This record gives sequence, structure tokens and C-alpha cells, in this order.
Amino acid sequence: MDYTLSEIATALGAELVGDGAVRVTGAAEPAQAGPMDLALAMSPRYAEALGQGRARAALVWSEADWQAMGLEGAVIAPRGRLAMARLTQLLDAEDVAPGIHPSAVVDPSAEIGADVFVGPLAVIGAGAVIGAGARIMAQASIGPGVRLGEGALIHSGARLGRNVVAGARLIVQPNAVIGGDGFSFVTEDASHVETARAELGQGTVSDSADPTWHRIHSLGSVSLGDDVEIGACATVDAGTIRPTRIGHGSKIDNLVQVGHNCIIGDHCLLCGHVGLAGSVTIGDRSVLGGKVGVSDNLTIGADVVLTGGSIVLSNVPAGRVMMGYPATKIDSQVESYKALRRLPRILRDLAKQKG
Amino acid sequence: MDYTLSEIATALGAELVGDGAVRVTGAAEPAQAGPMDLALAMSPRYAEALGQGRARAALVWSEADWQAMGLEGAVIAPRGRLAMARLTQLLDAEDVAPGIHPSAVVDPSAEIGADVFVGPLAVIGAGAVIGAGARIMAQASIGPGVRLGEGALIHSGARLGRNVVAGARLIVQPNAVIGGDGFSFVTEDASHVETARAELGQGTVSDSADPTWHRIHSLGSVSLGDDVEIGACATVDAGTIRPTRIGHGSKIDNLVQVGHNCIIGDHCLLCGHVGLAGSVTIGDRSVLGGKVGVSDNLTIGADVVLTGGSIVLSNVPAGRVMMGYPATKIDSQVESYKALRRLPRILRDLAKQKG
Amino acid sequence: MDYTLSEIATALGAELVGDGAVRVTGAAEPAQAGPMDLALAMSPRYAEALGQGRARAALVWSEADWQAMGLEGAVIAPRGRLAMARLTQLLDAEDVAPGIHPSAVVDPSAEIGADVFVGPLAVIGAGAVIGAGARIMAQASIGPGVRLGEGALIHSGARLGRNVVAGARLIVQPNAVIGGDGFSFVTEDASHVETARAELGQGTVSDSADPTWHRIHSLGSVSLGDDVEIGACATVDAGTIRPTRIGHGSKIDNLVQVGHNCIIGDHCLLCGHVGLAGSVTIGDRSVLGGKVGVSDNLTIGADVVLTGGSIVLSNVPAGRVMMGYPATKIDSQVESYKALRRLPRILRDLAKQKG
Repeated sequence: MDYTLSEIATALGAELVGDGAVRVTGAAEPAQAGPMDLALAMSPRYAEALGQGRARAALVWSEADWQAMGLEGAVIAPRGRLAMARLTQLLDAEDVAPGIHPSAVVDPSAEIGADVFVGPLAVIGAGAVIGAGARIMAQASIGPGVRLGEGALIHSGARLGRNVVAGARLIVQPNAVIGGDGFSFVTEDASHVETARAELGQGTVSDSADPTWHRIHSLGSVSLGDDVEIGACATVDAGTIRPTRIGHGSKIDNLVQVGHNCIIGDHCLLCGHVGLAGSVTIGDRSVLGGKVGVSDNLTIGADVVLTGGSIVLSNVPAGRVMMGYPATKIDSQVESYKALRRLPRILRDLAKQKG
Repeated sequence: MDYTLSEIATALGAELVGDGAVRVTGAAEPAQAGPMDLALAMSPRYAEALGQGRARAALVWSEADWQAMGLEGAVIAPRGRLAMARLTQLLDAEDVAPGIHPSAVVDPSAEIGADVFVGPLAVIGAGAVIGAGARIMAQASIGPGVRLGEGALIHSGARLGRNVVAGARLIVQPNAVIGGDGFSFVTEDASHVETARAELGQGTVSDSADPTWHRIHSLGSVSLGDDVEIGACATVDAGTIRPTRIGHGSKIDNLVQVGHNCIIGDHCLLCGHVGLAGSVTIGDRSVLGGKVGVSDNLTIGADVVLTGGSIVLSNVPAGRVMMGYPATKIDSQVESYKALRRLPRILRDLAKQKG
Repeated sequence: MDYTLSEIATALGAELVGDGAVRVTGAAEPAQAGPMDLALAMSPRYAEALGQGRARAALVWSEADWQAMGLEGAVIAPRGRLAMARLTQLLDAEDVAPGIHPSAVVDPSAEIGADVFVGPLAVIGAGAVIGAGARIMAQASIGPGVRLGEGALIHSGARLGRNVVAGARLIVQPNAVIGGDGFSFVTEDASHVETARAELGQGTVSDSADPTWHRIHSLGSVSLGDDVEIGACATVDAGTIRPTRIGHGSKIDNLVQVGHNCIIGDHCLLCGHVGLAGSVTIGDRSVLGGKVGVSDNLTIGADVVLTGGSIVLSNVPAGRVMMGYPATKIDSQVESYKALRRLPRILRDLAKQKG
């Protein structure tokens, strides 16, 4: 890239202060910034290191005294991470020319839209429909009957199973799997795990029952809204009869498991290692921190926040912030943790009183 | 598909009521069912929505008043999920014609059984033996020396490392890895983590010790019984000297980690994100809920149920139902959780009494 | 393999006792060992089973009475697992002849070092630099601009994104992803999750806010030291502006998530399912047990041990051994667990006293 500070301010819709003619060719953290780098100094803590680098221009916070910081010019970013979103988009030069690599295996019945890129050794199955401008990177698989909206970016090694449907601008990170079979098995007669769940662990083990697990096939595939992103090695299982659904604008991090028949609303975030068992419903705009687990058939309302590591064993009403195992309202949970920390000493005191 | 209700009842080994000549061409949830769909109304809760759809036939529970529900005919499914297993199997039309795609790379020394399908860009290594009727889907890898029983289904991007052996009807979901190297490293002298484990955190850090981790190679590969299924992006590591083993009929969900040298019995279920450290033994018919972790070298008995999120730090006897971190008998654990919830108030009361 | 016991002792730098001329062609656990196997009997517990096998030679512990154990000769391994590291390395016959498979797709601008193997259907992108002796196995992807030091071993289906840089002897297990995009999104105005974090769950949900998540692109790639190993289906995300870093000799297990901008020191171990959110720093020689989670922007010191399943919500000083959720010093945590176990009975007693 090669921009003037003034051009960057315009692109970011942000205020320019100082010399708008300063040219930058990249971005860097303050200590590593050279004279052609835009330093990222969006808070006083980051700005401290400006002296260790040689930046002439920076992205700064609203009240920053940019002149005292030794800069020739600055772009003011009152919401630093939002400015980063726009800046990194501007700087991202990744691009591929449309075309189908000769080593790709594309079924003759697939419909490939305008300006699509299909990388080396990618596979596109029978009847698949790929929207305009999509990029199917090296070694990715698009199963039979898949329909992708315009502008999809399917990274290397990602697997989209039969009949997956997605809206516009889907991003799938490498080696993610969308539309694998659900984990759904049943025994002839009630299994030990069924009685144990029903009776809180009091179920007895039957020696005579046939332990064979019969497989429920997954015929429902997956349906994704517009602007969905699925992380590396994440897995979204196909529904049994109807699709597993993820709404518009929802983002799924690496190594997340979304079980069969789940319905995830719009604009949700599911962070790394989140696991949803089968048939979980999640309302719009909910955020699940890393490693959150949700038991099968539960409903999580809209605008819920589940902090990292929470294990959810019952329904959660809209707007609730929950923590812990089992997940509980965060203020009660923190109170319990504090009480537990004091408990050993209190029990010792009680024992002394008795003695 | 296109079946009469009577044909479906026969295929499911289930009782028909009403007009067996009604034709159905698919299955659907009650509210979405059209006149040619078999509605899935296996419980009163599901059946409520029948009025929103247009189903003429349904799968219903034993006592269902199918005529009052407005149906022309019904198949009675006293164990709904078992009926679903049979029905979805009937409906699953996925099929590929045998043959080796010209873009696949098959080592000349590999033995390919009758009626095998090898998909585009798949790789089969030297000396591999592929049983009759197997389907090796696009871009999958079968390492050198692998032996697969009849009817295997290896999905796209799955990796089977050198010398993996499996019985009949193995199913491997996309991007799973069987036979990667175990996570097994050792320092020249006792490391901090070793002393910390031995002394419950009282170990001192030695500044002089060489921190280099030496690698223990994994030479033992993996051995799988008949009817095993491995989920998407799950990983089953090779044993050190002898195989890591998974018994007949056991099912492993997505993103599960099975460490080197583990021995898993027959008919077990390991749900999403379960993690077994090295050398764990699990008895027959045990069920591990989502996100269960088991520390290395532990033994879990047969018929054990570990509820989702449990972290197991000691051996578990057969038949036990366990919960929590550290995993404890479920009834004690629930009692502790309840007591903990009451604790903050009780401590406040105690403080008042003292005051 | 085919070695005399004496040759094995030399290779292991270990003491030989008995007949050094005994030949062995493999290694086995004591009960399974045949007359040509070196039995692995490094502790009395393992040695018990020698009688069930037919071993003539074994690897034994320092004080072992090898003659009483019926052996003709033995190699003394005072630190058994260290001997295993050396022995398994000796026994590991995996090898491939250098050369580029004709089905691989190698960009003409890539620089391929001496004695490199590129397997079938692998892809090497524009400008990539592959050090001498590297093995890029079947169907792996090396992105544009990647630089690999000498002796790399990149297993089947592993994905290295654009501009990933690694030192010597990198090992990447199958289907791992290095350099996928970070999970980094921001709304125009403060989102509910931001206020909920700031106010411990007391934040109110704003109905008017635009819930759209804007994407922060990941331009910084990943930088790995020498002797790093990355497990199967593990994911290491690219940094935003500067690289995500993993130091020399650190080992990352299967299904681990390393978020964008993390900095991991030298000689660390991160066990299966560990999850680091964005911008976490980990000091040298720290060991994170299976399923440990670390919240974003935290600093873990050097020589820290986090036991399996710990969820870390605040910084951890060097040398500390931590356990639980939230992670706490192990001795306090164990005390709390014990007190909690006694609590239900104590509360019952208190209730009786009152009554």
C-alpha cells in the first residue's frame, strides 16, 4: 500500500490532524514503527512506546496530544478497534485473479458464477451453484448440491457437505467442516445413560440390554445467512430432517462445535472451543465466550452473554449474563466463588469453637 | 424417495394405522410438512404443530389419537428416536458408483477390494488394503500400510496415518485425523511440571535444568473395531509401541481428542470436545458427555456416565455417574452445588450473629 | 530394525548388562513381547508381565534384578521415558526419498531447497521458501510467502497461511492450521458484551445499537521458532499487524487454539484442547494441561503450571501452579474443594442446632 495520511483519514471516515501529506506504506505497533509506518497508538498505554520507534504518523485516541508525542500528523480514532477494522481492510492486499485452476475437479453440472476463482486441487460437486466473485481456495471441497451466495471466500481444506446453503459473503477458514453428520445414535431399549439422566444417577445398569448404537442419519444439511464466518477446524453438523441454521452476521470461531438441528440467531459470536450439543437454540446478538458448553435441547435467549468456560445446563432468559459450571447469574456466581474461597478458614474457626 | 405408508411401516417394523396407501416422498417436522411429507410427530409436544402444516400421514407415539390429529394414516413409533434411525436410513439416498477417479493417486502396491469408490484427488499409500465396498471420498488420505474392512466410508479430507487398522463399516467424518503422533515429550532431568505434580504445586523451579523436550515417537498406530465412527476434526493419536484401541460399535463425536495408548471399550459414546490424555482406559458402554476431560493413565470402568464438562482426576469404578470438576458422584456434586449457592447468605448470617 | 542389545545400549547412551549379542528386531510391552522383541519393563509394575511374554532382553530400571526376571540381557534406563525417546527415534523407519510428486502444484516462484520431498497433491504458493530436507506430505498447503527452515515435516492436510515463518525442524501434524484469520470483530458502538464485561453483568441491552460485527483483518501472520511442533487439527491464528509468536522448542498438542497476537515463550507445552484467546503472553517453560482456557490480554509468567481444565481469568506470576475455575493456587483450590465436599453435612448440622 501507499497512502497519504489524508487519504487514510478519508477511508476511515476519521478526523485528520497535522500534515495530511505524510506518506505511509504500512502499519505497525509503536515500538516497531519505521518512518513509513502508521503507528497504532490508540490508547496512552500503546503510545508510550512511540519513542522506541520512528513513526511520523499515528492512529491516536480522541484527547491525544499528538504534537507532544513527536508526530507530524495523526488520524483520530475515538473507537480504536473500529478504526482497526477499516484500516486492516484497506491494507489487506490479498487478491486472486478469477479463473479455474486446471488441476481443480469441477463437476460439469456445477454452475460457476462470474469472476469466480477456483484454486488448485479444489473439488466442486454435482449441481453446486457458486455465486459471483467467490473464491474457492486450494484443496477445498464443495459438495454436491451446495449453493453459495456472491463473494464467498472458502479457504484451503474447508469441507462443505451436500446441500449446504449460504447467503452472501460467507467466509470459511481452513479445514472447517460444514455439514458433517450429526452425532445421533439410539439403542433398541432405554440405555443406561438415558435412565441415569432421568434419575440423576440412580439408574441401574441392565446386563441384558443390547448395547448397539443405531445411527440416525443427517439429511437436513446446513443453512447459513449472509455475512457468516466459520473458523478454522470448526464443525457445523447437518440437521436431521431440516437444516441446522446460523443467522445473518453471526461469527463462529476456531474449533467450535455446532450440533445437529441447532438454530443460532443473527449477529451472534461463538468464541473458540464453544460446544453446542444437538437442537440448541440461541437468540440474536448473544455472545458465548471461549469453551462454553451448552447441553442439548436448551434455549438461550437474545442478548445473552456467557463468560468463558461456562457450562450451561438449563435454559437462559434473554439479556442474562452467566458464568460458571453450572452456569449461574454472574453476580451470584462471583459471590459464591468468594464465599468458597473463605470457606476453609471459616470451617477451621467453627471447628475451634466447638472444640 | 416414494413410499406408501404401508411400505414405511414394514421397513420400520412398526404398526400401521389408517390408510396404508397414502404416498409420501419425504419427511418433515409437523409445521413444515406438506401433503407428500411424513410428519415427525413422535410426542404430543411435536404433534401440536401439525395444524400449521398439511401432513396427511405421520410417525406418532403409542397412545396418539391420530384421527383427532387430522391424519389419514400413521405409523406408530413407541421409541421415536429408534424409528428415526430406521426412517433416516431409508431416506438417505447418498450413493456413489464404484470406480477410481482418474485424479486420485493410488500407490500401485495398494490392494483395492471389489466395488470400491475412490474419489477425486484422494491418496492411497503403499501397501494399503481397502476392503470391498469402501468409499474413499474426495481429497481423503489413506496412509501406507492402512487396512480397512469392508464397507468403510472415509469422508473428504480425513487422514488415516500409517498402519491404521479398522474393522468393518468404519465411518470417518471430514477432516478427522487417525494416527497422528502422540503428544509425548520428556526432559533429560525431572522438569518443573513433574515435580509440581508429585508435590501438589510445592516443587521449586530449577534454573539449571535443560528445558529441551525430547520427542517420544509414536510407532504403534491405531486399531479400530467394527462399526466405529469418528467425528469431523476429531483426532485419535497413534500409540507409542502398541496401538491405541477403540472397540466395536464405539462412536466418537467431532473435535474429540483420544491420546496415545488409550484403550476404549465397545459401544462407548464420546461426545463433542471430549479429551482423553495418554494411556486412559475406558470400559464398555461408557458415555462421556461433551467437553469431558480425563487425566492421563486413569481407568474409567464399564457403564460409566460422565456428564458434560466433567474433569476426571482419578479412577472411576464401573456403573458410576459422575459430574463436575473434579468429577464427583452426581448426587454429592449436586448437593455441593446447592450448598454453595446458599453459602453467601449463610456467611452473612454468621457474621451478623457474631456482630 | 535389527540390532544387538549392545548396539541399542550404545545408541541410548545406557548401561548394558548380560549378553550384548542378543538380537532384537522390535520393541513391545512385556506381555506381548516375542523372543526377538526388546521388552519395555522400565518399572516393577510393567516388569510383572514379563512372564506372560517371551522376551529375552528388556529395557529395565536401575535396581532391576534382570536375571531373576528371566532375561539374557538388559539395557538399564534410569529415566524410562527418556530412554523411550531415544529408542523410538531409533526404531522409527519412516522415510521418503526426496523429489516432487508430479501431481503436486508448486508455484514457479517458490524456492525449494536441497533434498526436499513434496508429496502427491500438495500445493506450494508463490514466493514460498522451503528449507533443505523438508518433507511436505500429501495434500498439504504451503501458502504464498511462507518460509520454512531446514528439516520441516508438514503432514498431510496441514495448512500454512500466507507469510508464515518457521525456524528449523518444524513438525506440523495432519490438518493443523497455522495462520488462519484471528477472531476479531467490533461493532460501531459499544456492544452489550462490552458493557457486560465492564460492569460485571449489570450492563443494559440497547435496542437501538447496530449489531453488525465489523471484521478486523489479520495481516501479521505467524512466526515460529526452531523445533516447534503443532498438533493435529490445532489452530494458530495470524496476528493483526505483527506476527503471533511461538518460541523455540515449544510443543502444541492436538485441537489447541492459539489466538491472534499471542506470544508463547520457549519450551512450553500446551496440551490438548488448550485455548488461548487473543493477545495472551506465556512465559518460557510453562506447561498448560489439557482443556486449559486463558482469557484475552492476560500474561502468564515463566515456569507456570496450569492443571488440566483450569480457566484463567487473571494474570499468573512466574513459577505458580494453578488449578480450577477460576484458576487459583493449587493448594488453596484443593482446600476449597475439600471444604465444599464437607459443606452439605455442615449446613445440615447448623440447621439442626438452630432447630
